[in-house]
Amino acid sequence: MKQTAQQIADLIHGKLMGRADIELSSVASLKNAGSGDLSYAEDKFLAEAAQSHAGCIVVSSAAAESSSRTDHTLIAVKNPKLAFTLAAGVLLQVTESGSPIHNTAVIETEHPIGANTRIGAGCVIGRNVKIGTNCVLYPRVVIYPNVEIGNRVILHAGAVIGADGFGFVKDGERYLPFPQIGKVIIEDDVEIGANTCVDRGSLETTIIRRGTKIDNLVQIAHNVEIGEHTVIASQTGISGSSTVGPHSIIAGQVGIGEHARLDPHTILGGQAGVLNGKHVRGGEVLWGTPARPLKEFLKQQAHLARMPALMSWLKEIKTKLGIRGESDS
Amino acid sequence: MKQTAQQIADLIHGKLMGRADIELSSVASLKNAGSGDLSYAEDKFLAEAAQSHAGCIVVSSAAAESSSRTDHTLIAVKNPKLAFTLAAGVLLQVTESGSPIHNTAVIETEHPIGANTRIGAGCVIGRNVKIGTNCVLYPRVVIYPNVEIGNRVILHAGAVIGADGFGFVKDGERYLPFPQIGKVIIEDDVEIGANTCVDRGSLETTIIRRGTKIDNLVQIAHNVEIGEHTVIASQTGISGSSTVGPHSIIAGQVGIGEHARLDPHTILGGQAGVLNGKHVRGGEVLWGTPARPLKEFLKQQAHLARMPALMSWLKEIKTKLGIRGESDS
Amino acid sequence: MKQTAQQIADLIHGKLMGRADIELSSVASLKNAGSGDLSYAEDKFLAEAAQSHAGCIVVSSAAAESSSRTDHTLIAVKNPKLAFTLAAGVLLQVTESGSPIHNTAVIETEHPIGANTRIGAGCVIGRNVKIGTNCVLYPRVVIYPNVEIGNRVILHAGAVIGADGFGFVKDGERYLPFPQIGKVIIEDDVEIGANTCVDRGSLETTIIRRGTKIDNLVQIAHNVEIGEHTVIASQTGISGSSTVGPHSIIAGQVGIGEHARLDPHTILGGQAGVLNGKHVRGGEVLWGTPARPLKEFLKQQAHLARMPALMSWLKEIKTKLGIRGESDS
Repeated sequence: MKQTAQQIADLIHGKLMGRADIELSSVASLKNAGSGDLSYAEDKFLAEAAQSHAGCIVVSSAAAESSSRTDHTLIAVKNPKLAFTLAAGVLLQVTESGSPIHNTAVIETEHPIGANTRIGAGCVIGRNVKIGTNCVLYPRVVIYPNVEIGNRVILHAGAVIGADGFGFVKDGERYLPFPQIGKVIIEDDVEIGANTCVDRGSLETTIIRRGTKIDNLVQIAHNVEIGEHTVIASQTGISGSSTVGPHSIIAGQVGIGEHARLDPHTILGGQAGVLNGKHVRGGEVLWGTPARPLKEFLKQQAHLARMPALMSWLKEIKTKLGIRGESDS
Repeated sequence: MKQTAQQIADLIHGKLMGRADIELSSVASLKNAGSGDLSYAEDKFLAEAAQSHAGCIVVSSAAAESSSRTDHTLIAVKNPKLAFTLAAGVLLQVTESGSPIHNTAVIETEHPIGANTRIGAGCVIGRNVKIGTNCVLYPRVVIYPNVEIGNRVILHAGAVIGADGFGFVKDGERYLPFPQIGKVIIEDDVEIGANTCVDRGSLETTIIRRGTKIDNLVQIAHNVEIGEHTVIASQTGISGSSTVGPHSIIAGQVGIGEHARLDPHTILGGQAGVLNGKHVRGGEVLWGTPARPLKEFLKQQAHLARMPALMSWLKEIKTKLGIRGESDS
Repeated sequence: MKQTAQQIADLIHGKLMGRADIELSSVASLKNAGSGDLSYAEDKFLAEAAQSHAGCIVVSSAAAESSSRTDHTLIAVKNPKLAFTLAAGVLLQVTESGSPIHNTAVIETEHPIGANTRIGAGCVIGRNVKIGTNCVLYPRVVIYPNVEIGNRVILHAGAVIGADGFGFVKDGERYLPFPQIGKVIIEDDVEIGANTCVDRGSLETTIIRRGTKIDNLVQIAHNVEIGEHTVIASQTGISGSSTVGPHSIIAGQVGIGEHARLDPHTILGGQAGVLNGKHVRGGEVLWGTPARPLKEFLKQQAHLARMPALMSWLKEIKTKLGIRGESDS
C-alpha cells in the first residue's frame, strides 16, 4: 500500500528530514533499494546508507545528526529496525484477489472458515476444525480433525497439525497405540513454519499460546503447552507433556524430554538437551546436553580445553613424588 | 463402539465392582471424563480418581481394595494402562463412511489396494506399489514407485516413502548420482509419523520390520534395516546401510552413522550419536556423542562437573611442590 | 536404455574381457544381478563377484588380472564405482511418457516451464517462479512466489522452497514479522531432498550454488548462501545469513548458527554445532559442539575417558601431601 514519506514518519512517530512527498511502495535493504523503497540503517551501516539509492531511510536519531548533510530523505526514530518493521507491515500490505479458499483445498469441517482467512492449494482441513479470521494457510497444510485455530494465525506449507501423538503401551513384545484423541489449540497470532508437526493430545490438549512463533521442521509432541510470545527455532523437538513458559527463546535443534517444565523467560542455546522431567527454573540461559547454566557450560568447555596442560602437570607432580601410574604408559 | 462396563471387564479380564450395565462410548482422562467415558488410574492418581466423573475407571487390584467405599464403577486389573489401552481400541473403533480412497488421491499403481485400506486426500501412490489390507494413509502421503506396504500399516500426513537415497560419486569436482533403484519394504503393523522420510535402497532394499513405530520428522536412509517391534522417536536420523536390531528403543534426535550395527534391545538416549561403522553390542543403554554406555557417560559428566575443584587442588599441590605452570596465569 | 557390454566399455573407457555382444538393460548389486544387469565390484567383493549372476561386472584393473580365469564378462577400469555410476546413468535413462506436468499440479507462475522439466502430482508453483530445463519436481513440492530454479534441478517430494524466513522484531512483548520478501535462487544441477525447507531471503537472496546436493529434512534459513559442489546430509540446519564455502561436506544433524562463515572445503562431522558469527577457516575438519578441529575434539574425548584414573592419582597425591578437600567426601 503506497505511502508518502510523511505518512510513514507519522506512522512510526519519527522525525522526517527531507522530501515529505516522496512516494514509497515497498521496502528493501540499503544495497538493493530503489527510489520507491523504504530502507533502514543500523549505526554500523552508515557508509552503506550514504551510497544507497533508497527513497527514504529510517535511521537512529544519533545517525540522523551525524549525516545531516546527506541528500537522502531520512526518518529519525529511537529503534530503526522496529520502526522499519512496522512501516513494512503497511507498505507490503496487499489485497489478495480471487477466492480466499483455493479450489484444490479439501475442506471437511462443518464450521465456517473465519472471514479473510486464506487457504492455499492442496490444504486438507479435517472434520470439526475451527479456523478464525485473517489466517493464512500456505499450500499443502494438513489439519487433522478436532483442532482449533485462532485469528491471524499463519501456517506454512507442509505443516501438519493434529497428527496422532507417539504413545504406545507394551503388550508382550507388541506396541499397542495408547489413545490419541485429544485436541490441538493454536491461539491468536501464532506462526508455524514449513513441514513443522504439532501432534494432538493423547487424552489432554496440545496448546500453542498466542503470539508464539515456531520455525520450520519443529516437532511439538502430544500434551505439550507452549506459553505465549515464545520463539522456537528450526528442528527443535519438544517431547510429550512438557511445558515451555511464556517469553522463552528456544534456539535450533534443541531437544526437550518428556514431562519437562521450563519456567517463563527460559533461553536455550542451539542443540541443548533438557532431560525428561527436568524443571528449568527462573528464566535461566542454558546450553549443552544435559542442559546446564550457560556460565557453567562455558567453564566446563574451558576446563576441557586445558586438560592437556593439566595432564602434563600431573605427570610432573607424580615424578616429583615418585608415584607411578598408567598415565606413564 | 458402545460397550457396557461388563463387556469391557470381560474384554480386559478384569474384576468389575459397581454397575455392570453402565454404557460406555469413549475414553478420557480422569479430569475430563464424563458419565459415558472409560478412564484409568495409576496408583498415584487415587485422589484424582475419587473426584472423577468417569462412568467407569480401570484401576489396579491394590487401588480397588483401598477405594472399596467409592461410588465409582471400577474394573480391577493387573496393568491398568495396558487394559485401558486395549479397551480404548474397542470403544474408539469407528466404521468410516464414504469411499476408502479419497477422490483427490493420485493412484498410479497397477496393483489393487488392499481391502479396508483408507487413502487420504492428496496422497500420491506411484507405479508398482503394493499396499496391504486395513492400512490408513493420512492426507498427502507420497509413495514413490516400487514400494511394498504390509497390512495394518499407518502412514501419517506428509510422510515420504521411497525417495532416492543420498548417494553420490565424485567425478572431478562434480557429484554424480549413484543409482538409487532399490525397493522399500514396510511390514505389517508399522506406524510412520508425519513428514517422516524413508528412502529407497540404492541397489538393495530398505526394510522396516513388523510392529515397529516411527515418530514424526525421522530420516531413514537407503539400505537401512530396522528390526521388528522397535520404537524410534522424533527427529532421529539413521544413515545409509545401518541396521537397528529388533526390540530397540531410539529416543529423539539420535543420529546413527553409516554402516552402523545395533544389536537387538539397544537403547539410545536423546541426541546420542553413533559413529559410522560402529557395532553396538549386546543390547546396551547408550548416551552422548560418540555414544557410550550410559554409566560411563554419567560418570564423565560428573567428573566434568568436578573440574573446577580439581583445578584448585592442582594449584595447591603445585604451590606446595614449587611447580610453576601456565595455570598460574 | 539397452546397451551392449562393448558399448558400456566404450562409454567408460574400460577394457572389455568376455562377450562384447551381451545385452544389458539395468544395473544391480552383485548379489541381486541377473544376466541383463551391469554390476560392479570393489576389490574386497572379489569372492562375491565370482558368484554373481551379473551379465557384466565393472572391476579394477588389478581385480581383472587376478580373476582372469572367470567366466564373467568384465570391464576393467581405474575407478569401478565411478565408471559403474556413469554407465548406470545411461542404462537407467527412461523416456517418460505422458504429460510432463501432472494435471493435479497447480501452476500459478506466468513464466513458461523449461523444456523436458517434469512436475509431479500435487506440486504448487507460485507466481513469478522461473524453472529451467530438464528438472524433476517429485509430487507435492511447494515453491512460493519469486523463486528461480536452474536446469537439471531435482526437488524431492514435500520440499518447500521459498517459505518466509524466521525473523521477528520485538515490540514490547509481541514479536512483529520482519519483512521476508527476498528471493531464492537454486542453480543448475542442484538436488534437494524430501521435506527439506529452503527459506526465502528477508531483504536479500538465499542462494544454492550449482552442483550442490542436499538431503532430506534439511533446513536452509533466509539469506544463506551454499557454495557450489557441496553436500549436506539429512537433518542439518543452517541459520540465517550464514555462508558455506564451495566443495564442503556437511554431515547429518549439523547445526550452523547465524552469520557463520565456512571457508571452502570445510568438513563438519555429524551433529557438530558451529556458533553464531564463527568463521571456520581454511577448509578444516571439525566436530563437536562448539565445533573444533577434529584432532582437538578426539584428544578431549580421550582425556575425558581418562578422568577416573586422573581422579584417583589426585587423591593419592593429596594423601601424600596431607591436603584435604571435598573429593574425600
